Amino acid sequence: MEWVSYVGFVAAFCTSMSFLPQAYKVIKTRDTRSISLVMYIVYVIGVSLWLIYGILTADIPLIVANFVTLLLAAFILFIKIKNRGTDKT
Amino acid sequence: MEWVSYVGFVAAFCTSMSFLPQAYKVIKTRDTRSISLVMYIVYVIGVSLWLIYGILTADIPLIVANFVTLLLAAFILFIKIKNRGTDKT
Repeated sequence: MEWVSYVGFVAAFCTSMSFLPQAYKVIKTRDTRSISLVMYIVYVIGVSLWLIYGILTADIPLIVANFVTLLLAAFILFIKIKNRGTDKT
Repeated sequence: MEWVSYVGFVAAFCTSMSFLPQAYKVIKTRDTRSISLVMYIVYVIGVSLWLIYGILTADIPLIVANFVTLLLAAFILFIKIKNRGTDKT
C-alpha cells in the first residue's frame, strides 16, 4: 500500500469513528436537543448511498467504513426521533 | 459519467451538506450541549485528512466535497469550544 493510501485510510477511520463519542454521549445523557434531526436524516441517507456505491464498485474499505458509520449515525438518529416529543426540533 | 458515479456524487453531496442544518441550528439556538466535542474534533481531523488525500490524488470532487464539509464542521466545533464554559462537555 502506498503512503497516500494510508492518509485515506486514517481519514476514513476518523470520519467513521467520530460518531462513536456522539453515540456514547447520547446513551449517557439521552439528551439530543441541540442535535439536528435534518442533519442525521440527510447523513444516514448519504452514508447508505456511500455503502451502495462501495458495494457497486466492490470497494471493501468503503463498505466497511460506511457500514460502521451507518450503524452509529442511524443509532443517533433513532434516539433523536425517540426524543422528538421532548426535543424542540 | 457512469450512473454508478452519480450514486457516489449524491452520497458525497448528502454527507457534506448534512452539516448545513446542524450549523444553522447552532447559529439559531447557540445551543451545543448535546453535541459531542470529541466527535467534532475527530471529524474535523478526518475531513482535513480527506482533503489532503484529495489534493494528493488530484481528485477534484473529493477536494470540493471535503472543503465544504470542513468549513461547516469546523464552524460547529468553533461554537462548541466557545460554549465550553456553559456546556457540560
